[in-house]
Amino acid sequence: MFAEILTIGDELLTGNTVDSNSALIAQKLTESGYWVRRKTTVGDDVEEIKAAVREILAREPEVLVISGGLGPTHDDVTMLAVAEALNRKLVLCEECLEKIKAFYERLHREGYIDDPELNEGRRKMAYLPEGAEPLENTEGAAPGAYIERDGVKIFVLPGMPREMRAMLEKEVLPRLGKRKFIQRKLLAEITDESKLAPLLTETIKRFNVRIHSSPKGFGKYIGIIIFGESEEEIERAKAFMEGRGIRFEEGW
Amino acid sequence: MFAEILTIGDELLTGNTVDSNSALIAQKLTESGYWVRRKTTVGDDVEEIKAAVREILAREPEVLVISGGLGPTHDDVTMLAVAEALNRKLVLCEECLEKIKAFYERLHREGYIDDPELNEGRRKMAYLPEGAEPLENTEGAAPGAYIERDGVKIFVLPGMPREMRAMLEKEVLPRLGKRKFIQRKLLAEITDESKLAPLLTETIKRFNVRIHSSPKGFGKYIGIIIFGESEEEIERAKAFMEGRGIRFEEGW
Repeated sequence: MFAEILTIGDELLTGNTVDSNSALIAQKLTESGYWVRRKTTVGDDVEEIKAAVREILAREPEVLVISGGLGPTHDDVTMLAVAEALNRKLVLCEECLEKIKAFYERLHREGYIDDPELNEGRRKMAYLPEGAEPLENTEGAAPGAYIERDGVKIFVLPGMPREMRAMLEKEVLPRLGKRKFIQRKLLAEITDESKLAPLLTETIKRFNVRIHSSPKGFGKYIGIIIFGESEEEIERAKAFMEGRGIRFEEGW
Repeated sequence: MFAEILTIGDELLTGNTVDSNSALIAQKLTESGYWVRRKTTVGDDVEEIKAAVREILAREPEVLVISGGLGPTHDDVTMLAVAEALNRKLVLCEECLEKIKAFYERLHREGYIDDPELNEGRRKMAYLPEGAEPLENTEGAAPGAYIERDGVKIFVLPGMPREMRAMLEKEVLPRLGKRKFIQRKLLAEITDESKLAPLLTETIKRFNVRIHSSPKGFGKYIGIIIFGESEEEIERAKAFMEGRGIRFEEGW
């Protein structure tokens, strides 16, 4: 039930962009019942991306979602790097090329670009790793890719948030099936997190749950997230803590 | 001149929190002249943190900045995991314990907490890896740690953004010395990024720079970041592109 996320882009490593994509992907994977074990970010560099993909596959997650570097410019090298990491060739996706052609023709008709022709950069986006299933980009030019490899579901998505979000919702989540575990957010009425610590430790020992408590300064509440495989188990863990004098409010 | 960043926290892997800390750290490291090669995020898990720290050290960066998991609760295990990754013991920092004591006494006087006593969770924060130099937390209880290990400067910072920012500015950046390379942001007046690609490729071949161009949809501009070791080299690269008909505006 483990998943990993790989985001790609020099702008993420210079701090010019905050990586909100990986947070959204993590949230959707968690809601789908996957445990996101690690997030990795590398730059637009074939060797760095290859190395990261191979290290992640060696940890054998069930799902790997990759985002970024599918565009037309010289530094969009993700598909090439993923293909090399999997020892596959990049092959032309004819259907993708047709869609890219139509996309730029529409932009030209609508006056957004001067030139509707398929130059090298635009054509590049139609090449996917051999055996990959194209994922439709309803918001932009570059298709994504879905690859199954030794039981790992690999999804390659664009980095533009609008495009990534649409592809995640329409193409990725439907392929991930049912949720396996769930999370419940609670607010604990307590004035000091460190007094809660021993009780949390005892609770995770007694019940089949994981608990995250997030510091919210020293206000009246502490945010708790209980992870478990069933509502019942989470309810039992919550009731146990209530029995020890903790008062909860739902959600935060 | 390579640096890596490791952020720690289950909330980052569930998407409940967007990792703005690593973006700020990346920005400051870049401004200080370091090339951030990779960012990694793992949960509040000793084994995961240990594994990540050891993998990063094996890549021999000059600097490793770690953020998150220094608090008083059961899931704040970063210092323990870092100590184990370095095969060091956790040892009590007396000076840190005094500051933590004073911190909670002040919070108690000011009416923020019920109990000023040093319970187990609070005491835990005074333990640092053997040989570590404590980093002052001017905004919270938990001290950070600075460790030199085989030429790698390792900084361990809190995850609370206010505390992390202050420690980064006051304790980390002064230890990083002079910037080694710089970045220049330009806006290129061009209506399609893919037409710029061949020129960018030629520019990075001819000059000792790296260039990142970031998709901003299909508007009038494309954001360019030129990285180089001197203003002069960046200026030469810019002039070359201008000679090929690209018009730039400064900054974005």
